[in-house]
Amino acid sequence: MAKNITPRATDYSQWYTDVIREAKLADYAPVKGCMVIRPNGYAIWESIQQHLDRMFKDTGHVNAYFPLLIPQSFLEKEAEHVDGFALECALVTHSGLERVEGETKLRPKGKLEEAYVIRPTSETVIWAMYKNWIQSYRDLPLLINQWANIYRWELRTRLFLRTAEFLWQEGHTAHATAEEAREETLKMLGVYKTFAQDYMAMPVIAGEKTEGQKFPGAVSTYTIEAMMQDRKALQCGTSHFLGQNFAKAFDVTFQNDKNELDYVWATSWGVSTRLIGAIIMTHADDDGMIIPPRLAQWPVYAVPIYRKEDEKSKVIGAMQKVLDDLKRKYDIRSILDDRSTATPGFKFAESELLGYPLRIELGPRDLAADQLIITKRHNREKVTLPLAQAVDHIPRILDEIQMDLYTRACKTLEENTREINSYDELKDFVAADGGFALAHWAGTTEDEKRLQEETKATVRVIPENAPAEKGKCILTGRESNRRVVIAKAY
Amino acid sequence: MAKNITPRATDYSQWYTDVIREAKLADYAPVKGCMVIRPNGYAIWESIQQHLDRMFKDTGHVNAYFPLLIPQSFLEKEAEHVDGFALECALVTHSGLERVEGETKLRPKGKLEEAYVIRPTSETVIWAMYKNWIQSYRDLPLLINQWANIYRWELRTRLFLRTAEFLWQEGHTAHATAEEAREETLKMLGVYKTFAQDYMAMPVIAGEKTEGQKFPGAVSTYTIEAMMQDRKALQCGTSHFLGQNFAKAFDVTFQNDKNELDYVWATSWGVSTRLIGAIIMTHADDDGMIIPPRLAQWPVYAVPIYRKEDEKSKVIGAMQKVLDDLKRKYDIRSILDDRSTATPGFKFAESELLGYPLRIELGPRDLAADQLIITKRHNREKVTLPLAQAVDHIPRILDEIQMDLYTRACKTLEENTREINSYDELKDFVAADGGFALAHWAGTTEDEKRLQEETKATVRVIPENAPAEKGKCILTGRESNRRVVIAKAY
Repeated sequence: MAKNITPRATDYSQWYTDVIREAKLADYAPVKGCMVIRPNGYAIWESIQQHLDRMFKDTGHVNAYFPLLIPQSFLEKEAEHVDGFALECALVTHSGLERVEGETKLRPKGKLEEAYVIRPTSETVIWAMYKNWIQSYRDLPLLINQWANIYRWELRTRLFLRTAEFLWQEGHTAHATAEEAREETLKMLGVYKTFAQDYMAMPVIAGEKTEGQKFPGAVSTYTIEAMMQDRKALQCGTSHFLGQNFAKAFDVTFQNDKNELDYVWATSWGVSTRLIGAIIMTHADDDGMIIPPRLAQWPVYAVPIYRKEDEKSKVIGAMQKVLDDLKRKYDIRSILDDRSTATPGFKFAESELLGYPLRIELGPRDLAADQLIITKRHNREKVTLPLAQAVDHIPRILDEIQMDLYTRACKTLEENTREINSYDELKDFVAADGGFALAHWAGTTEDEKRLQEETKATVRVIPENAPAEKGKCILTGRESNRRVVIAKAY
Repeated sequence: MAKNITPRATDYSQWYTDVIREAKLADYAPVKGCMVIRPNGYAIWESIQQHLDRMFKDTGHVNAYFPLLIPQSFLEKEAEHVDGFALECALVTHSGLERVEGETKLRPKGKLEEAYVIRPTSETVIWAMYKNWIQSYRDLPLLINQWANIYRWELRTRLFLRTAEFLWQEGHTAHATAEEAREETLKMLGVYKTFAQDYMAMPVIAGEKTEGQKFPGAVSTYTIEAMMQDRKALQCGTSHFLGQNFAKAFDVTFQNDKNELDYVWATSWGVSTRLIGAIIMTHADDDGMIIPPRLAQWPVYAVPIYRKEDEKSKVIGAMQKVLDDLKRKYDIRSILDDRSTATPGFKFAESELLGYPLRIELGPRDLAADQLIITKRHNREKVTLPLAQAVDHIPRILDEIQMDLYTRACKTLEENTREINSYDELKDFVAADGGFALAHWAGTTEDEKRLQEETKATVRVIPENAPAEKGKCILTGRESNRRVVIAKAY
């Protein structure tokens, strides 16, 4: 294990912080609760953006940009919405600084007539604009996404998982019918699920949130929930059916095809830089980061090995040819680390911290034997490849690594998911950090609060496609017809 | 000309606003001085980002993300810097809103101990981080770029050109020597110049700014300046050599290769959504927007023409084949507008407003004659192409359009640039909105203020590679050895 990383078994939370520091993914910023996303972390976000953006466009969405600041009065137009975000608002109250004779610190200048809130989410300002853009059913649907920064002042923060400022995308769509809006809500939940599985190599449980866990202002909220290596749940993305709530708050009506005036139906959906935290907590190990190949900017990291100067050019030449062919034939990007200031051993250790999925070594003896050595980061497996065929093997091996990571994560999820049939059993299961409890639940929002107070667990998701099964709610004894997922969560 | 667009000759400023509204590029937001970038405008920004980001990466840069909020005290550490931005700061002073019994409006809750400023630029917070990341010459150079939103409260705003919030990229690099930092400053100026010419089809004059027009905190500032159709100058991108100013303000030192401690050398450089305004003001006409093909998300807009139902499927089938081949063979994206709710005439007019560079029409008679008609948006030229070869002609025609736009803009620049040899001549030239004056200048910052007060013009740029020429400053009569560009500017 790496010397600067606390093992997971010793202190999971410290392990997470250590991996982020050693892999140079992020840093705490000199602003309370905020982070700096360092180049290695941001590269993962760029991959996430690239693939998700394509998936959004393939489903008919376009991007736009709405203002960072929201007039306080806008936020107040939807009562549940403002109550949901009130405590987390950052308030802009003044414009300008001025020097005052005899004072070293500059003073705030003009007080604003109305305070602005830095967007904690953009429904209100977007629906204020939609009012101008929507008149008739011919203007619908409006399928808009925004990539933006968000500010929610949080008490307890953790890099990537919960920070005051974070980056995200927020889709905001407008529809002529409730049915179409509900379809959109589920379609985007599906996009998130596919992305998590196919790109992040992370299994998720998709389904609906309970009444008490809904987005403030939503009619219903859907979620994808993943299990981290400490068996806690992480909510990784949400998709909301907003009904006509925001259309009513901002008076957005349209003429339908029967020439009647009706309020517009809405959805919103988002994922954030939290996904980077999910990748770390799903795949990384005691030696550092592991990046799934399909999200790695540089899936291949290559170390030339040589002692003498005349070996150097031969080794690097042969290696460069492999890497160039990989780029040309398969569009796979790589790093050739030919730093003379570091030894191969140092480079190996560093590359394990940084999490490149596949490492290539090539030395004079390999060259003489017409071979190169590859090492898979996630399981340390070494494979010797014939030099001439290496280029055509590597894409397949990267696919295998991607699949391996997914299978490994599925195993963690399956092994730590259990049917639980009584409240006492649940308490024990949760206290032992057992994982996901599949239990019958028919409680109210009040019951959910009691559940959380007594066990620290919450109802994470009502899984879609859960088999119908008669049972009794583990807390209230009321009749229930499907099991939900109950777990401790981030 | 389009009926909702004021002709340029009648009211240039109104024309600009009309084009933005009719092409649905942006809207004023319900937040003072802010804009909403609508999907059509944002698509141009996405193209700009995509190409520039590749150019940054090809020159060795990586992306990262730094916090939106900057502690006021950070901004104050570099005196010129804070004075330069003090009046434009948006101040965050409170966290949280709370309901107070009997009041309808929520009240600000916690007052912050220290106010935060929404970043007007990020040098200060970035150099506070660089202090942690840089110890030795081995950590240098640090070549980091950030794509972000920026807030500068402006009194007079104009969509894209000057808004309180805007989107931009800001490069912030750290170097071991002054020479290397100066090289970087000019390299990135070169990237901007190439991008403006090759992608925006916009000629620019690159060079240095005068002392009075420097970025607050810079040792020297370089700029690319373009001429808009009303012959005013628009500063389109800047690159700054910051010397050791920010390293000293934030105490960022490093061990050089001689084992001595020295302050780090810095650059910063940026372009913003202002570039979209530059594209409009360079290429659009009285009929609406014109997007240069290399920045168009959809370079080709196709209208099928038919009356009877049996014609429809044949026409659309043939058209779709052309478009599919364009995508497959040349990766050129297109829109097939088969809306049944609009006539071809309506679609033609709308496509001119929106500015697709190339339009394709195809009807039953064309099909019978094995041909299709294309129309170039920028000059209305119609060309009939044999259907079978259309796909292979279109990429070349798009290149010609791109080149035509550039040539046309070069002509505007050349025809409206004149050598001016006396102050009186300059006053007349500027009063008549003549364009760019090439004049000898050796004035001080005070002289520049006088120039601006008396003529409304400023020294825009000291052109790089300007031929050496002895002369007298038109204002002060002092000796000068090269001409500068003086013009009114946005």
